[in-house]
Parts: sequence; C-alpha cells; structure tokens
Amino acid sequence: MTEPPRMRWWGWGDPEHGPALSSHTLELLRETVGVSETPRPPVALDAVKLAQTRLDEDTRATLAGIVGAEAVREDRLERVTHAAGKGYVDLVRMRAGAPAGAPDAVVLPHGHEQVRAVLELCASRGLAVVPFGGGTSVVGGVEPLSDGHRAAIALDTSRIARIAELDLQSRIVTVGAGMRGPALERALAAEGLTLGHWPQSYEYVTLGGCAASRSAGQASSGYGSIAKMVLGLRMAAPAGDITLAPLPASAAGPGVRELIVGSEGTLGVIDEVSLRVRRAPAQRRYEGVMFESFAAGVQALKAMAQEHAMPEVARLSDAEETRMSMALAGGGGVKGRLGRAYLSARGLGDRSKIGQQTGRCIAILGFEGDAGEVKRRRARALGLARHSGGVALGGSPGRAWLAGRFQAPYLRDDLLSHGVMVETLETATRWSSLQRLHDAVAGAIERALADQGTPGIVMCHVSHLYETGGSLYYTLIARQREGSEIEQWRAVKRAASEAIVAGGGTITHHHAVGRDHAPWLRSEIGEQGVSALGALKAELDPTGIMNPGKLLP
Amino acid sequence: MTEPPRMRWWGWGDPEHGPALSSHTLELLRETVGVSETPRPPVALDAVKLAQTRLDEDTRATLAGIVGAEAVREDRLERVTHAAGKGYVDLVRMRAGAPAGAPDAVVLPHGHEQVRAVLELCASRGLAVVPFGGGTSVVGGVEPLSDGHRAAIALDTSRIARIAELDLQSRIVTVGAGMRGPALERALAAEGLTLGHWPQSYEYVTLGGCAASRSAGQASSGYGSIAKMVLGLRMAAPAGDITLAPLPASAAGPGVRELIVGSEGTLGVIDEVSLRVRRAPAQRRYEGVMFESFAAGVQALKAMAQEHAMPEVARLSDAEETRMSMALAGGGGVKGRLGRAYLSARGLGDRSKIGQQTGRCIAILGFEGDAGEVKRRRARALGLARHSGGVALGGSPGRAWLAGRFQAPYLRDDLLSHGVMVETLETATRWSSLQRLHDAVAGAIERALADQGTPGIVMCHVSHLYETGGSLYYTLIARQREGSEIEQWRAVKRAASEAIVAGGGTITHHHAVGRDHAPWLRSEIGEQGVSALGALKAELDPTGIMNPGKLLP
Repeated sequence: MTEPPRMRWWGWGDPEHGPALSSHTLELLRETVGVSETPRPPVALDAVKLAQTRLDEDTRATLAGIVGAEAVREDRLERVTHAAGKGYVDLVRMRAGAPAGAPDAVVLPHGHEQVRAVLELCASRGLAVVPFGGGTSVVGGVEPLSDGHRAAIALDTSRIARIAELDLQSRIVTVGAGMRGPALERALAAEGLTLGHWPQSYEYVTLGGCAASRSAGQASSGYGSIAKMVLGLRMAAPAGDITLAPLPASAAGPGVRELIVGSEGTLGVIDEVSLRVRRAPAQRRYEGVMFESFAAGVQALKAMAQEHAMPEVARLSDAEETRMSMALAGGGGVKGRLGRAYLSARGLGDRSKIGQQTGRCIAILGFEGDAGEVKRRRARALGLARHSGGVALGGSPGRAWLAGRFQAPYLRDDLLSHGVMVETLETATRWSSLQRLHDAVAGAIERALADQGTPGIVMCHVSHLYETGGSLYYTLIARQREGSEIEQWRAVKRAASEAIVAGGGTITHHHAVGRDHAPWLRSEIGEQGVSALGALKAELDPTGIMNPGKLLP
Repeated sequence: MTEPPRMRWWGWGDPEHGPALSSHTLELLRETVGVSETPRPPVALDAVKLAQTRLDEDTRATLAGIVGAEAVREDRLERVTHAAGKGYVDLVRMRAGAPAGAPDAVVLPHGHEQVRAVLELCASRGLAVVPFGGGTSVVGGVEPLSDGHRAAIALDTSRIARIAELDLQSRIVTVGAGMRGPALERALAAEGLTLGHWPQSYEYVTLGGCAASRSAGQASSGYGSIAKMVLGLRMAAPAGDITLAPLPASAAGPGVRELIVGSEGTLGVIDEVSLRVRRAPAQRRYEGVMFESFAAGVQALKAMAQEHAMPEVARLSDAEETRMSMALAGGGGVKGRLGRAYLSARGLGDRSKIGQQTGRCIAILGFEGDAGEVKRRRARALGLARHSGGVALGGSPGRAWLAGRFQAPYLRDDLLSHGVMVETLETATRWSSLQRLHDAVAGAIERALADQGTPGIVMCHVSHLYETGGSLYYTLIARQREGSEIEQWRAVKRAASEAIVAGGGTITHHHAVGRDHAPWLRSEIGEQGVSALGALKAELDPTGIMNPGKLLP
C-alpha cells in the first residue's frame, strides 16, 4: 500500500507540490481584495513554539510496552504535524509557529487490541486522547486540547489500515480505520469496484476519519455520504467496545451505528469500518451547463433530484463564483483556455467587465455508471436543465473541474503566503429555503468582512443534492488583517453561523462540528439533544479523555 | 379525516370484516398441521379479566384538567383495546380474556403541550406511560407493563393527527404523530404525492408509531424504510423536548434523529414527524416471475438491487411458501383462479402433489413511477430475472398480491378460532449470508415445532432489498398446544432468535424490539451498546416511566 507523502506540517499536501497560484490570479486579487506586498511565508519548523512533553517516564515506557517504542513519537516534526488540522485558523497559527497546543506524544497502535490498551492506560492516568486519521479536519477537530488533563496524546490510526474482508457478493468491504481513500480505491479497482467517496481531502483522508466526521464526498448526490456507506463498525471507547456487524438494515432500536458515525472521536476510536461498495462505473461523463440565473439553476437541480435524474456530481456556482472562476481561469492550462473561451464567448473577455453583474451561473454535472444508465440519466437531466433555460457548455468545464478537484487547499497555502484569507463553510437546507438562505449567509459574510475593514469576495455553490434539499458551500476571500487574523476570522465565522441557524440551515453539512461549530450545536439539536449526547459521552468515556473540547458546546 | 373503524379488541381490524378462511384452506390445514374440531372463539368483552383502575381521584382530575375529562378513559372497552398490540402472544392472551395487564386509563391528548403536561404529571407521580399509536405492534411494544409504578396509562396519539405543513417545493410533509397511513396518503394524493410507506398494518398504523418502531413498508425496496423518510421530528421526553427541524442532511455530530427513530416510546413520545414525500407514480406494474430454485431467485433479486434495476416491491417466496400459497389459493377469487391455473400449468393440479419438493419459487415484482421509468427498470429487472432462469408469469400474481396485501391478519384471527398457531418473524442479512441464514432459521423453527409435538409448516420470503443484502420474512403455521400456547410460542421464538443471531442476521428488520426481541438486543449491539442506550434513557426519562420493559434487555 503506497502511503501519500507526509503532509506539509504548515499547510496542505505534498511538500513537493509546485506553486498553485498563477501570476494572473495574484494580479486579479491585488486589484480586488488586495494582497500583502511582503511575502508571509511559514516559519521554520524549529521556530514553532512547542512545550516540553509532559509524558512521564513510566507512562512513556508503558505506552511503548503496548505499541512498541518506535510507535511512541515525541520528536518535533511528529508533534507539530499532529498539532492541528487543516482549517484556516489552524494554518494561520501553524504558519506563525504558534499552534494552540501540541500532543505530548504521537502514538501509532497497530490494531484494535493496542488501541484498547492505550485508551485504558490514558483513562487510568488522565491523559487526553485525540484520535488522528488524515488530520484534514477544517473545523478544529484534531486540535489537542488537554484542559484539565495531565497530558494529551494523538492516537494516529495510520497503521490500522488493512482490508479485513472484501465480501464481493454483498459488496461490503471491511477496512482498518486508518486506510486512506486512494489506497482503498486502488484495492477496490482491482476488483472492478469503487467506494465513491471523494471529499476534497480525498488524497489524505482516512476512512475512519470520514466515518467519525460524517463526511460527504463530491459525488455524494449519486453515491451518498459516508453515513449511507457505513454498514458496520467497531469503536474502542474507554468504557468498552461497540462492535456492529455490517447489516443492510435493522429495526433493532435506536440507530447505534448512527450514534458513532459523526461522534468525532469524542466517544472513542473508530478502528474498523464496513462500507458498502459499488461496481466501478464503465463511463464517467462530466460537463458544464450555464443558467441565466441562480434561481433557474436551482430549479433545474431540484428537478433532477426529484425526478429520477440525479447526477453523481452536481455543483451549481452562484453568479459570483461563476464570475470569479472564469476570471481566475485566465492564467493557463485547461481551465485557463476554457476560461478565456468562455469569457470571450460571453462578452467577458474584457477584464473591465469581470465585475459586472451578469447573474449567469455555471453548473458542473457528472454522470457515472454503465453506458445506458449514463445516457438515460444524462438525457433526462439535460432536458430538465433546458427546461430551466440551461445551455450545455460541453465537456471542457467538466474536465477542468475534475482536473482541479483536489487542488484548492494548495491554492490556499499560496494565498496565505500573500496575506490573503481564504475560508470555506457550508450548510444544507430544504429546497424551499435554499435561495433565501443563500442570500442571507452571503450577505452576512460580506457585511462581516466589510466591518473588519477587509471587504471581500463571497461566492457559493450548491452541491450534494437530495430530493428534499441541497447544500450551500461558501468560499470567502479577503485581505488578512495582519496581526488580527484570528479575530477577523472569528467575526466572519460568527456572522455566517448565526445567519445559517437563523435561516433554517444545518450548522454543517459535511465539515463536522469540531471546535468551530460547537457553539451552534445547541441551535440545531436543542438543549435536550445536547444533554442526551452528553449522557452518552459520560457513559462511554466516563473520565472525559476522548478528544476534549470538541463537538459538545 | 375519516378514521378507520375501531379495531377488534381481540384481533385484527374492522369488526365487520367477513371470514377470511376458506373451507378449502381449512381442509388443507386439517390434512397437514391439524385443526381443533371445537371452535375456539374469543371470550366476550365482559369476561376479560381487568383489575380495578389504580388511578386515584386527584390524578384523574389533574389529567382531566390537562386533556379534558372526556379524553381520560377508564371504561372497559378502551382499557381492553389498549391492553395489548397485535402479536400472536397478545392475541392468544386477549382471546382467552387474560391480558398480561391493562392500562389504568387511556389518555388522549390533543397536542404537544398536553403531551408534555401529561408526561410531567406522570413523572412526578410515578405513573408508567405507554405511547399508543395504531396499537399494531407484533412484538409486545404496547403491552402496559407497570412493574414498580403506581399505575400505567396508555397515551393514545390519535387526536394529534393534523397536517402541520406541506412543503410542496421540498416535498416534505409535517404531521401529527397520530395521523394514520391512509389519511396521510389521501391528503397527499390530492396534491399528486405519496409517502410510499405500506406496512402490512397500513390501514391502522400511525406515522408516529412507524417512526418509533423503525418500520419498513412493503415497497421499501423502492421508497426506503421510514428511517429514510423521517427528516425531522419532535419528541416530548420527561426531561424535555427534542425538536429537530426537517433537514435533507447534516454532519452536526451523532445522528440524534436516528436515536429517536426506533426508540419505541422508551425515551419519550414522538408527537410530530416531518417526512419526505414523492410524486405519486403515474404507473404501477406488479407481476409474477417463477424461478427453478430459491438460489436462482435470490441471485436475480441481488442483481436487481445492485444493478440499477430495483423494483419498488420485490418478494421472493421460498419453495415452501410458493407451494403453500398455490395450494391455499385453490379456494376461489383472483388468487384461487390464479392458483388453479398455475397449479395446472405446473403439473400441480393434483392435490397429492402439493407436498412435492419441486423447489420452484415465485417472486412478485412491483414497479412504480412514470411510464418511461417503469418501462426501463422493469425491462432491466426482467432481463436479470431471465438471466437467472426466471419465467415471467404476467400480471395476475401481482394483482392477486396487491388485492390481498393487508389481509393476512384477518386470516390469522380465523386460524386462531380453529386452534391453529400462525406467527411471523423476520430478519435481514447480507447477500453472502442469506441462503445459509434462510436454511438455518427455517430448520430451527421446524425442529422447535416438532419438539413441541406440533410439526408445522415453515415458509419464508425475501423482501426489502438493499444493495448489500435483503430481509427474510418467515411465516409458521402449526397446531396450537391447547393450554400451553405461550410456552409453545416461546420455545419456537427462542429457537428462531438464536438461529438468527448465530447466523449473522439482525434480530429484527422491521418489527422492532418491544418485549419479544429485548433478550437478543445484546447480541446485536453488545453490552456496551446496551449501556449506551441505557444512559440515554436515564437522561431523557430519569424516573423510568416511558414504556417500561420494552427495548432494553
């Protein structure tokens, strides 16, 4: 199993990855939101503030006795790499060399029995345990908060990554929680199968992390979110294990499986998951459609979702995101050529017109399946798009989107080096509230950015379709308030979150709760819902060692 | 809203319903399992043993102050009607005039505030509360066990049955929990919509009861189980309310909605549910297919589920069920004519051959949707059936099945009058275990019946398909051991349940846990899973008044 290259400790992905920011884009941002004229690189690893490890000699030895000395890491690189996830706040802190905290040690168990023994040791000694999969949380989900604990360890699942069973007849695969997305897809591809779960973090994500954070992949409209895929799992909790055999369905009481999915490491460590897989599609067809307005596009997507024409991938950019992606695409490559062609075709080739309010919105539609299935659903979906005034743009936008689908986090690193804030946030709501919520949240973010003295660009797309509604995914770009980056972010995040809950959206459709959304969980499940989860945690994690400070407000 | 006729207190459904047992069927049973030569009718209502109500004057007055005096019922008919559900054991007891218990009063609140006030009163005075919807539980789910409580009330939701909101754009309907299936379907039909939830108990079932018991309708292969339909709900628990707005999806922590769905009244009273609805199908096409063996039929159903050809309804009878339904169908009517035609076409017209081991299995396939959709999926499904050697039998078997789909409980009443035990039980498992589990459970039931000195008929069908597996639904028919009916049943139930959990099936796919399956919940979710649910109950229902003795072992 080839592991991906170790993630940059201060940012995203492969350290060998080249620059993602074109001079064209930089210029555009300089003209709009403004950029820092002095580069703002991350500090050197040695400059990262790191407290002495608080692990005592006996605990270290006992841990080593469980997992092996080599699997208890206290070196700087490991501790720093496990000090944060990959949210905007995390990166701001890490680049400045000032993480909110760091684990005192990173422990890499090799299997369930070792996980269990580590948890029991930590419970008996008052050590916080932060389960760590791909470390890709963008909501502070792996921040090692150890308030009130003697020390905190990151429990890294990357060595629990075996395929335990591949049931070809039932199309169920059972894997160690630390298996990464690409490794599983490679193994499945050899059998003509696919999981179909491609979050933007796909290249680094672990399946256990996906289950714990209730993630949704980019093709969730067709394949469903991870919650639909997880049929069984095993969680080691301090109080004991819960093992649920993979079942297609059950009416045996409340959904215990659904309790563990989304528990974000606060109840225990998910160390094995059983997942539904599907036959790998013989055909993939991705393309663009342009609508005259966001409302027209939403109408078309809704019709596809409700009338048996659901694409696997459906992403409708609002007018702002459409304009920006076309403008940013001017730099070169597939996207650049496409962008120029599009801009010129639409009379937008002249840069001065980029800011114009055309209202047009591009959608990417992706269909996967056997040839007949793709043909049928695509024809039906495009028919519904035309019915809403949609104009087919052909395969180029689809190819461009596929080529760049995992690239945004690299771009974010480069933008941070130029003093530009880029953050994403998301929600979901029913169709009847979607347009209103879209406008309310975008407006709230714009106002908050302006109030910070950093007016910005706020763009959004609808994706992750359901018969009853869809998600809204926002990207905001603004000049950083240097020296007050976190305060600036906090003001924007608060404004967006308040608009989301006021407008009937969920506080998170697929980023999970973590540290960042915890203040708003109460708005969603109520005081009594929070108490219920609290009772559950008290039962499974009686000494409160599991991922402290996450999920529960 | 037309309410269905009050259910027979000693059996199923409309008291005006005529006999369901033909002389032909009776004769067949006399020749096979044996029947009682003296009729065994239910006792008269006045003969039912009923303890004096334990409600004290002040509690009665306080309850009346909350819901109105007319909505606090202590008369014999109400108390007896609410003394049990409609499982085999319930009916044996009720017909003998010896229910396991009866509520001291039946309370009929008119809305959420009244439910809340009733719960608070009951919690403060130590009264057990049994939420009662359609009263159709077949697992002892509404038996009023009041061990350790001063009294028990049945909280009947039938007056909380308003449509609170119909969101046509999002296709979400929000209804009071006491609304019955047919009433909702009528209201939806007026808007061209359908819920698509047709359990066998459909005519009496309430939507709140469906949500609480995690039911699956006969068309769940296409429409999904109730768990897939419930997008939001409100539960009044003694500790407080949990209100979840309808959302298409969320990643905000563990699935609280999934915790309440399937809670079987043990955590609180679900008094409102928001449900996904769909456009009513323009076309319904139901038909029969015959396979040379059960294995061939299973193979075809699996292929349909995995290869985009899922019918809305798919039911594959095993050889025994096929033989029995053909033999029983000899009596007249559509099914009779069909049966004779089939028997004669297959060389089974001669009664003496009925018992022969032909191995042939009939499947009913039902497709619903617009014309194009039905045509496409049906063609594909029939192609897959042919590939497994299936032979199309045309629309007659489909029509016969539709005509009789809600009739089995009436037949059960008549069989009980002739001393014949008829019980059903069900499970689900993955495809790779299905055949093995089928054989193991059937064998266990057969042996248990023989051990009781009452060898019987054990038949099964696969229904409720999923990509990863399907359900198995058993019907067993045997002569009652008169005077030891419950012991006889208990031995058979234990044997079947043990075979189910040993064979990797869920203890219940859609009948819920109730009283009957509680001993096996631990096998499914483990000691720690049971403790987790216990902690949740302790939080939401701290004095343990909600539906005591159900769900948790």
